[in-house]
Amino acid sequence: MKIVTNPSEMKNLSTTYRKAGKTVGLVPTMGALHDGHAALMAEARRLCDVVVTSIFVNPIQFGPAEDFSKYPRPFDRDCRKAEESGCDVVFAPAAGAIYPADFSTFVDVEKITDTLCGARRPGHFKGVATVVLKFFNIISPHVAVFGQKDAQQCLVIRRMVRDLDCPVRLVFVPTVREQDGLAISSRNMYLSPEERRATPLIYKGLSAAALLYESGERSAAKLKEAIAQTIRGSALLAVEYIEIVDMETLAPVPQLSAPVLAAVAARTAETGTRLIDNVVLGGTF
Amino acid sequence: MKIVTNPSEMKNLSTTYRKAGKTVGLVPTMGALHDGHAALMAEARRLCDVVVTSIFVNPIQFGPAEDFSKYPRPFDRDCRKAEESGCDVVFAPAAGAIYPADFSTFVDVEKITDTLCGARRPGHFKGVATVVLKFFNIISPHVAVFGQKDAQQCLVIRRMVRDLDCPVRLVFVPTVREQDGLAISSRNMYLSPEERRATPLIYKGLSAAALLYESGERSAAKLKEAIAQTIRGSALLAVEYIEIVDMETLAPVPQLSAPVLAAVAARTAETGTRLIDNVVLGGTF
Repeated sequence: MKIVTNPSEMKNLSTTYRKAGKTVGLVPTMGALHDGHAALMAEARRLCDVVVTSIFVNPIQFGPAEDFSKYPRPFDRDCRKAEESGCDVVFAPAAGAIYPADFSTFVDVEKITDTLCGARRPGHFKGVATVVLKFFNIISPHVAVFGQKDAQQCLVIRRMVRDLDCPVRLVFVPTVREQDGLAISSRNMYLSPEERRATPLIYKGLSAAALLYESGERSAAKLKEAIAQTIRGSALLAVEYIEIVDMETLAPVPQLSAPVLAAVAARTAETGTRLIDNVVLGGTF
Repeated sequence: MKIVTNPSEMKNLSTTYRKAGKTVGLVPTMGALHDGHAALMAEARRLCDVVVTSIFVNPIQFGPAEDFSKYPRPFDRDCRKAEESGCDVVFAPAAGAIYPADFSTFVDVEKITDTLCGARRPGHFKGVATVVLKFFNIISPHVAVFGQKDAQQCLVIRRMVRDLDCPVRLVFVPTVREQDGLAISSRNMYLSPEERRATPLIYKGLSAAALLYESGERSAAKLKEAIAQTIRGSALLAVEYIEIVDMETLAPVPQLSAPVLAAVAARTAETGTRLIDNVVLGGTF
């Protein structure tokens, strides 16, 4: 497996693959790789001749009070995990190689970033869209693979790719979960043992809503209440939002008809860890 | 010469050229083609196997009080001019094919768009950067050719390409002028005969500044005053700005050392036509 840190070198390498008629799959990550990432790499492996995983803790998608500096960066372990998962190239540029001192160009997906996580993390999706577009331009992937756990991110990238005509096919892979249902996330390692025991309630709440939906319930208020009630089962979880929204506009849907996204963000009481999860009701991504 | 209106068809066509090993040159225009555009196409012709000229009056780069609806659209004449100038493909999409109803993604080059034309035309360069990035993604050109007459546009696109790692080489072609020095522009056709006679003063002012610079003058105030004084020679010209700025940051340079851009915008008294022009002092683009 190759490790590339220089963006120009990465660009040349991708051009070489393309010229040799090979398809390139990109898995953009912030490192701290886990089984969720492994599923993304496996999907890229299945679809493409070459798998590139980017490992880049993107400074511009973190707010000033967020966990940029403490975000885990176990680089050697990540490289082993990437190699085991069938990755051919790890692209791990330094922040300065991606953002020169006078960097000043941003990609902004408007409106659908004003809600859910976007409303609580101003500038977050602008940072995500900008770095993803940069990586598309550096790596020229045929396919880019993202995890459905970051549902709003998937929908924002999908909108960006449509609006800006990015020549890439997007693939969204279902969330990988721990045995008790907790969505696997690099941030789970922040949890205290007590918090960890409480966190399955988030997916339990979403599953309760899905069951109600299957049995015919179409009122968003009732579905959201089912989720809220389940999560209230632990004093260690504080709900940040529970929303049921349209998959294209991300506008709240009071009465369900088309597929909708049921999305939750919660913060734990002891370590202040922010957890998100979601399910799609009545359809798929 | 091919005329393509469908973005997907354009994308496929470009892919075909690339796969055949041909280099593609893009000349982005708003139509109303003149000898300035012909010089851009000639340069693309010289550098590339295939020349694509886009003709698209981009709605999102016009302000609400600007000339979007009256901007000239002589499409058949433009196609003849493009063909005569060695163009292989005209890409002329409808506005709705470029901006679907719920379009919401924009590329914003910050800071260097807060000055010169950007300060007078809020949102203009956001519209320019967005459509140019879209056309880069649709057409995948190896080379894109722009005219130095739109100096700030050149510098904004250059910054965007650097910041977003767009895989394209930019070429900036010197301004083509009428015999009396007026920079050729599609908007010159708005001028009354009296205004037309006054307009060469703009380039005359810039040339006076260039002469002073050559003779050793390094004070921006004195160079700007030479330009202003020349343009004041006609009551039909009202200066909007006269600036001498750094080529990278577009910040005002009081005392000249590195190459700088001397840029002018003026509006005519009778028809309200907005004219821009510039020269580089002490260097090139």
